[in-house]
Amino acid sequence: MSKAIVAGEIRLARVSPEYWRVTFDLPPLNIFGPANIPQLEEIVSSLETNARVKVVVFDSAIEGFFLTHYDLLAKPEESAKFPPGRTGLQALPDMLVRISRAPVVSIASIRGRATGVGSELALASDMRFASREKALLSQWEVGAGLVPGGGPMARLPRLIGRGRALEVLMTANDIDGYVAELYGYVNRSFPDAQLDAFVDGLAKRIASFDKQAIAETKRLVNIASLPPDSEIAPEWDAFINSLGRPAAQERIKKLMAQGFHRPGDVETRLGDYLGLLGR
Amino acid sequence: MSKAIVAGEIRLARVSPEYWRVTFDLPPLNIFGPANIPQLEEIVSSLETNARVKVVVFDSAIEGFFLTHYDLLAKPEESAKFPPGRTGLQALPDMLVRISRAPVVSIASIRGRATGVGSELALASDMRFASREKALLSQWEVGAGLVPGGGPMARLPRLIGRGRALEVLMTANDIDGYVAELYGYVNRSFPDAQLDAFVDGLAKRIASFDKQAIAETKRLVNIASLPPDSEIAPEWDAFINSLGRPAAQERIKKLMAQGFHRPGDVETRLGDYLGLLGR
Amino acid sequence: MSKAIVAGEIRLARVSPEYWRVTFDLPPLNIFGPANIPQLEEIVSSLETNARVKVVVFDSAIEGFFLTHYDLLAKPEESAKFPPGRTGLQALPDMLVRISRAPVVSIASIRGRATGVGSELALASDMRFASREKALLSQWEVGAGLVPGGGPMARLPRLIGRGRALEVLMTANDIDGYVAELYGYVNRSFPDAQLDAFVDGLAKRIASFDKQAIAETKRLVNIASLPPDSEIAPEWDAFINSLGRPAAQERIKKLMAQGFHRPGDVETRLGDYLGLLGR
Repeated sequence: MSKAIVAGEIRLARVSPEYWRVTFDLPPLNIFGPANIPQLEEIVSSLETNARVKVVVFDSAIEGFFLTHYDLLAKPEESAKFPPGRTGLQALPDMLVRISRAPVVSIASIRGRATGVGSELALASDMRFASREKALLSQWEVGAGLVPGGGPMARLPRLIGRGRALEVLMTANDIDGYVAELYGYVNRSFPDAQLDAFVDGLAKRIASFDKQAIAETKRLVNIASLPPDSEIAPEWDAFINSLGRPAAQERIKKLMAQGFHRPGDVETRLGDYLGLLGR
Repeated sequence: MSKAIVAGEIRLARVSPEYWRVTFDLPPLNIFGPANIPQLEEIVSSLETNARVKVVVFDSAIEGFFLTHYDLLAKPEESAKFPPGRTGLQALPDMLVRISRAPVVSIASIRGRATGVGSELALASDMRFASREKALLSQWEVGAGLVPGGGPMARLPRLIGRGRALEVLMTANDIDGYVAELYGYVNRSFPDAQLDAFVDGLAKRIASFDKQAIAETKRLVNIASLPPDSEIAPEWDAFINSLGRPAAQERIKKLMAQGFHRPGDVETRLGDYLGLLGR
Repeated sequence: MSKAIVAGEIRLARVSPEYWRVTFDLPPLNIFGPANIPQLEEIVSSLETNARVKVVVFDSAIEGFFLTHYDLLAKPEESAKFPPGRTGLQALPDMLVRISRAPVVSIASIRGRATGVGSELALASDMRFASREKALLSQWEVGAGLVPGGGPMARLPRLIGRGRALEVLMTANDIDGYVAELYGYVNRSFPDAQLDAFVDGLAKRIASFDKQAIAETKRLVNIASLPPDSEIAPEWDAFINSLGRPAAQERIKKLMAQGFHRPGDVETRLGDYLGLLGR
C-alpha cells in the first residue's frame, strides 16, 4: 500500500485489486465539506462498478480525527450547488446510502473523533471497529441547535435500539470506545495497538472470498436491515433548515469565537464545550 | 426542587422551566392502579403542551420500588371506567404512547423494582438508567398466568432483540442492573451512589439545548423506531382477558395469601415467588 | 429423562409432559442433512399440536458439536425431493419458521459448534444460551463461496444489528461464547459447568407457568419481531444456486481434500481453514 501522504485529499489506495483503502487526509482536522464531495463521489462510484473489489476500509491519516463535522465555514451555496445523486437524495446522503448498498463490504476503522459526518459515514458502512483509547464517536448537532442531516435518526435506532440512539442524539456527547462497544455503536473496540492488525486481517480474509457470494448475501441483509430512502431524505432538509435558525447561528458563533474549526480544545473536546454553550 | 413529600401522589417538580422531575410516591410499594391514572394523565398532557419543558426525569420516593405492578385489588370497573385516550388506546397504554411521542426527552432513573407498569413506563421513556445494585426490572405477568398489557411485547423486542425480550417475558424473572445493561434493557447501569448525579447532569445538559432541535430530531427517531399503535392496542385487551381466567385467578389468590400487595418478601422477591407458584 | 443413547437420531425426551428435550445425536459430527429432515419435521409437528408442552430445549449428545453445517455429501436430489412444507417454504426453512411461531418456548443450549444449520436452528429458537468456553457459533457459508440458506440474513440483523450481522456473515468466522454474548448472538453465555443447570432451571420455571399466557404473549412478540416468510424464502434458493457455482465447488473440493465431513481439524477449526482457502 502506498504510504505517500498528499495533503487535503480523500486518498484511495488499492492494497490489492480486491482490497481497497480510503484514507481521509484533510488537514488539519478532517472536517468534511462540499469541497470533498466530488472526490468521495468518484470513490463510491468505483466501489459500485469495479468488478474485482470486495472490501474497502475507511480510515484516517490525521492524528486525533477519523472524520469530523460538516464544514460550517463553507458558503451555503457551495452545499446547495450539487444536483441530487443517483438515488434522488442530496449529494452527501446519496453517497452514504450507496455505500450501504454497494456489493462490497465496507469497514470503518475508527481512531480519533468520528463526529457528525464522521459518525454518519461509519454508520453507513457495513462494520465499524474502534480504538478503545483513541476513538470518540458523536452526533454533536443537537448540542449546537442543529438537526443531524446524514441519516443517524434512521440508522442509529435500528443498530443500537431506540434508547441508546436517543441518548447519543439528544445528549450530543462524546462516546468513547468502551461505551461504543457496549452500545453496539461499533462492532467491537480494541486496544489501539491491535486495531490496525485486526482490521487488516479481516479485510484480507474477506478479500479472499468469492465476490458473488459476498454480494448476494449482503443484498439479502440489506432487505432485512436498511432503512428506506424515504426515511433518510427528510434529515438533510431538517439539517439545512436548522442551520438557518437563530438558535443554531448563535451557538455556532459562540463556538467559533471559542476556536471551532481550528486545531485546539474546542474541536478536541467538543462534547464538553457543547454542554456549556447554552448555560 | 421541592423536597416536601406528600404521601400517595405522583409529584411533579419543576427543577427549572426546562427540566421537570416526576416522582412516584405511592406508599408503601409504588403500586400503580386506576386511582393514579388521572394524575399521570395531567402530567403527560403538560409535557405535550408546555412550551418550555425539554426534559423530564421519572424517579421514585419509595425505597426499593421505582414503580411496580398494576393494582390487582382495584375493582375491574375502576379500570374500565376510563374512556379511550387521545390516541384511541385505553388510558394506560395511551399515556405511555404519548410519553414516547412527546416533544420532550424522557429519562427513567431506576432504583428499586420496575415491574409490570414500572417496566412499561421505563420502556415508553426515551432512555433508562439504573442503579447497578438496587434496580430490578421485570415483566412478571406470565408468571402469574397473565399477559402483559402496557406495550412490552411491542417495545422490548425492538429494544433488546427478540431472544432477550422473550427471556424477559417468558421467564417473568427479575433482571438486575448488570444484566439489564448487558441486554440493553437500560442504556447503562451505574453504582448506586453515582446514578443521581449522572442523570441530573444529563438532564441539565439537555435542558440547555434548543427545544426545536430536540423535538425535530426526536420526531425523526420516532419514525424509525416506534411500534405502530396497532401493535400496542391488543396488549391491554389480552391483559384484561387473561385476568379473568382461572389460571390467573388461582395464581393471584395464592400470591395474595403469601403477602402480595403488602410490604414484605413477596413484593421484594417477586421473581422467586412466581417460580414456585405452579409447582 | 431417558439417558439411553441411540446413534444417528434426533432424540425427543419428555422430561415431563410440559418440558421436552430434543437432543441432536448424529455421530460423529452432528452434520444435518436431508436424511434428518423427516425426524425433525415430526418433532416440530408435535410441538405445534401437543396440548401440554410449554417449553423445549435443543441440545447435543456429540462432544464438540451442537449441530453443524448441511450435509454436502448428500445428493442434491435428496434435498430436492421434499415437497414444500406447511408454510409453503422448502422443508428446512419451513421447520425453522414453524419453531419460531410454535406456541411453545424454544431454547437452544449451545455447547460445541453451531455452524450453518446449527446456527440457523439456534436463531429460529426463542432463546439461546451458550457455554462460554465450548460454544462456537458461525455462518461459514460465504467462506466457501456459498450463500446461507436457512434464514440468517433475515434473522441476524434483527437480533444483533446490521453491523454485527454483516461481520458474522461476511467473515464466516467462528464466534466464541464471550463475543456471542457481547453481540447478543446468544442471550448469555455461562461457564461450561453452569450451563446445564441454568437452562434446566429456566425450562422447569417456564414449564410451571400457564400455557395460554405463554402462547398469547409469544404470539404478540412474534408480530413485533419475526421476519416475514417472504424474506426467508429467497435464502434457500440462493443457497442451492450458489452450491452449483464453480467458486463454491472448488472451495468445497479443497476442503474435502483437507478432511471436511470427517472428524478432525477442518471441522473443529473451520473458521481458520476458510480463511486460507482462497489465498
